[in-house]
Amino acid sequence: MTIHVNAATSVDGKLASRRREQLAISGPADFARVDRVRAANDAVMVGVGTVLADDPSLTLDDPELVATREERGAPPQPTRVVADSNARTPPDARVLDDAAPTVVLVAAGAPDERVAAIENTGATVLAAGDERVDLPMAFEGIAARGLVDVMVEGGGELIFSLFDAGLVDELTVYVGSTIVGGRTAPTLADGEGFVDEYPTLDLVDVERIDDGVLLRYDC
Amino acid sequence: MTIHVNAATSVDGKLASRRREQLAISGPADFARVDRVRAANDAVMVGVGTVLADDPSLTLDDPELVATREERGAPPQPTRVVADSNARTPPDARVLDDAAPTVVLVAAGAPDERVAAIENTGATVLAAGDERVDLPMAFEGIAARGLVDVMVEGGGELIFSLFDAGLVDELTVYVGSTIVGGRTAPTLADGEGFVDEYPTLDLVDVERIDDGVLLRYDC
Repeated sequence: MTIHVNAATSVDGKLASRRREQLAISGPADFARVDRVRAANDAVMVGVGTVLADDPSLTLDDPELVATREERGAPPQPTRVVADSNARTPPDARVLDDAAPTVVLVAAGAPDERVAAIENTGATVLAAGDERVDLPMAFEGIAARGLVDVMVEGGGELIFSLFDAGLVDELTVYVGSTIVGGRTAPTLADGEGFVDEYPTLDLVDVERIDDGVLLRYDC
Repeated sequence: MTIHVNAATSVDGKLASRRREQLAISGPADFARVDRVRAANDAVMVGVGTVLADDPSLTLDDPELVATREERGAPPQPTRVVADSNARTPPDARVLDDAAPTVVLVAAGAPDERVAAIENTGATVLAAGDERVDLPMAFEGIAARGLVDVMVEGGGELIFSLFDAGLVDELTVYVGSTIVGGRTAPTLADGEGFVDEYPTLDLVDVERIDDGVLLRYDC
């Protein structure tokens, strides 16, 4: 199993403005790269905060990438995975449309009626953990469904939790050449934050793309 | 007049942990670079939050850099400048010792007794603005004292304010290969944050230093 976190930030580490408005941080070359990374993975994962803020579809834009997946015997689209402890994903969210299969990871304590509403869209709901999603258990569950290579696209709460659980194998960050600012704006890694020990990564590649730079780390 | 902001962040844009503990983000090659940038400037500036959290001395470590300054007829140390609207710099702060001259920028509303305590250490107090330091006015005041090339070392509140006022000429960010995390950890640019328009920078150089990468932007 591999977990590859990919995100685009401003120079000051922000994923979005303090109003959680999505920013056009990447340019066309980086969008194309992200699409290729999606295509190479079995699943594309986000946290529910990203679903609520951005309503992403998480599907491949480039039909050639879809064709390449089918040529190698993979489903046309990677499976979408949402980490959503309390089953807050709205049934009309784009990740629950029929463009690709979707797994929603919830905690056992998620309200039954919201879980049922998500299941009614055709999505698979996997419970792991009591109050919050137990990420290692959840990844076992999705690996058992053949989803072994997972790309994570954010947000900062999920990314922090994954680093906190020691689950990240690779991190790519596109740093766009803008300043967003804001004490409360979401960053690449939010959560409680580390205080005594900090995960140390291995910077393996630096590449200028569009007007910014892509940093690649082994974790 | 030139204003050069220099800072070291984690991959997720943090200057320190949520406890405001300073981190060893840079390595020896980057520390030496920062010392050279200090030596090349007339003044080295921080916000009072940085003084309260880290108690930096802001002086040159390398005696050769001091000698180089003296050879070109400059004072041995750059002047230290603290942006401190309410005169909260403690009189025993290292930036107020006699290792270098110091200018403390305050607002007109700063309490008289705290201003007097700072002046008693031998520092120069410059008032600019009513409730908060008016940065353009303050920079005029320090330029009038011959301090025309200024390096700013943080923190995120001051850096945001400088971008907000359109005062930054150059930004260098050393991105260390670590994750700090934390919704409330200080970032490269905090403040209120931009929401409609974002300053766009020009990435002019990317250089691997120590275990991280130095990004250089024209602003």
